[in-house]
Amino acid sequence: MTAPSELDVLAIGHAIVDVLAHADDGFIHEHGLRKGAMELVDRDRAELLYGALGPAVEVSGGSAANTAVGVASLGGTAGFIGKVRDDQLGQIFIHDIRAAGVRFSTAPAPLDGGAPTARSLIVVTPDAQRTMSTYLGVASTIPIDDVVDTEVAKAQVLYLEGYLMGIPDSMPAVNRAVDFAHRAGRHVALTLSDSLWVEGQRQSFVDVIPFVDVLLGNEHEALALSGAGTVDEAIEILAAQCRVVAVTRGSHGSVVVDGNRPVAVPAHPVDAVIDTTGAGDLYAAGFLFGLTRGRGPVDCARLGSLAASEVISHLGPRPETSLQELAEAAGLAEPARS
Amino acid sequence: MTAPSELDVLAIGHAIVDVLAHADDGFIHEHGLRKGAMELVDRDRAELLYGALGPAVEVSGGSAANTAVGVASLGGTAGFIGKVRDDQLGQIFIHDIRAAGVRFSTAPAPLDGGAPTARSLIVVTPDAQRTMSTYLGVASTIPIDDVVDTEVAKAQVLYLEGYLMGIPDSMPAVNRAVDFAHRAGRHVALTLSDSLWVEGQRQSFVDVIPFVDVLLGNEHEALALSGAGTVDEAIEILAAQCRVVAVTRGSHGSVVVDGNRPVAVPAHPVDAVIDTTGAGDLYAAGFLFGLTRGRGPVDCARLGSLAASEVISHLGPRPETSLQELAEAAGLAEPARS
Repeated sequence: MTAPSELDVLAIGHAIVDVLAHADDGFIHEHGLRKGAMELVDRDRAELLYGALGPAVEVSGGSAANTAVGVASLGGTAGFIGKVRDDQLGQIFIHDIRAAGVRFSTAPAPLDGGAPTARSLIVVTPDAQRTMSTYLGVASTIPIDDVVDTEVAKAQVLYLEGYLMGIPDSMPAVNRAVDFAHRAGRHVALTLSDSLWVEGQRQSFVDVIPFVDVLLGNEHEALALSGAGTVDEAIEILAAQCRVVAVTRGSHGSVVVDGNRPVAVPAHPVDAVIDTTGAGDLYAAGFLFGLTRGRGPVDCARLGSLAASEVISHLGPRPETSLQELAEAAGLAEPARS
Repeated sequence: MTAPSELDVLAIGHAIVDVLAHADDGFIHEHGLRKGAMELVDRDRAELLYGALGPAVEVSGGSAANTAVGVASLGGTAGFIGKVRDDQLGQIFIHDIRAAGVRFSTAPAPLDGGAPTARSLIVVTPDAQRTMSTYLGVASTIPIDDVVDTEVAKAQVLYLEGYLMGIPDSMPAVNRAVDFAHRAGRHVALTLSDSLWVEGQRQSFVDVIPFVDVLLGNEHEALALSGAGTVDEAIEILAAQCRVVAVTRGSHGSVVVDGNRPVAVPAHPVDAVIDTTGAGDLYAAGFLFGLTRGRGPVDCARLGSLAASEVISHLGPRPETSLQELAEAAGLAEPARS
């Protein structure tokens, strides 16, 4: 028996402001970027790439933060732990996440000349794919004291961003959060984030998997983590390690397992895909929201696909319309309690 | 005889980053805002309003800067003079205006704890109207030395933002620019910017009008400056003072005079008006670009309406597609030289 939860989902991840610009494939090739991937860059390279990019739009982002916003937009309660500097981009991040209804109480690092708030340069190509070059700045240091026992214990689900795995100055905080969640009888969910990241930080992922109840990722990430030759095989391997596994397959929807056989759930239809930034983050939001409401795996996947369909239909990584209303319109709203 | 010009348009104005958020009319009323207007606010009020606003998007703006970007998008050459701080928003402003192809060489004020880069909180209501609360910060101080004789002399048109009129720490720079332009035999253009601003800073406008060759504004602004009872009368009064006058009338298009009788030119059709931010700025861009290409007043107004139609069809104050290509598609491109 656990105490009633105050929060549905507490997410922990990199607090990032996205810098979104359109460019063609020539830009990707010219600058040696890996299309569709996330790559960490240092400040100099971030400035070089930024200088080469066209006019941009700044919007708050960060994978797990986007998921927390999605949970709130669905009518759930969400919190976020992540580090910004008390600079202009940090103030933008804090404003936006709170304005979206997410509980955010991590203190910003003071303006003392240290690394600034993180930014991710996101190149959106005409095929709606996004390619990210992220300068982590202060986001890569989450002090262990930013993770508070009672906060973690209040949340039904602790959600970890895969990009945190292997980040030296954040892992102690992550491990502490996982430890608190388990002691409080809460669930731990993890997104694999990026297949190249999984390959580069394999050991960190392998170390945390035994504590993960809910595993989310796309097919490339599932293959990278499992070492399997096929997606079916990857799902089988991962499902043996985590109670719930959901693997997204782009326009083919997702496959979900929760102890039984894998079930394929189709993607939610979209008129036009404009920008895939945030697709996985919002799938996770819908899926986790469903879980916290006691919904079955197929409904969770449907909620995930619905939330993802909203975010890919416009530029930017966070929902622009109420996901709760969209879920109601799609007949996926929470059933009335009798 | 004047020397050949290197620049089509040199614009001078407030260097501002826009913070755009959707809100309904309730927000406008609750916070005592004047719908459709621009109001200057101090830092405290800017923070209070920002705290009350929902998640926002940051994009570079500033009226005259938007016009300079529009001229560049039409295939013209444009420069901009305006002040930012060397902070994150200032770096965003500089990046975006240069990435748009505008010559910008005003040095940012150093990071010394002084007023930050300006931001304008722009509330976009469901009727696509924008209401602006602007904290000018360092933008309200344009040092006189930022205006360089040779730069002004290089531009066919010096374009002044009306919002500069009456700003004490910028007027000496503005007057210097006007003086340089006249000595070099260049044209001076002025936008009236905002009817409340015209009313509040009437004397400054009246003082500069004798030096203005091209006057741009909407019907409310024309009424405010002229003191006339009807728009027709206002146009007549203003046309007696400035060689070229163009008055925009929203969806009714614009009226233009250049020494002859006023001519009404219809608006360019738009599928859906999303956000009117930048409409007047882009009208000015098209109009001035046409003038620098020796086009007649009707063609100038058509180019203005075309540029405005692009910017009101999406969120944000600057064009997202090439205005040059739009002008070609609309049969308004520069005639081939024989």
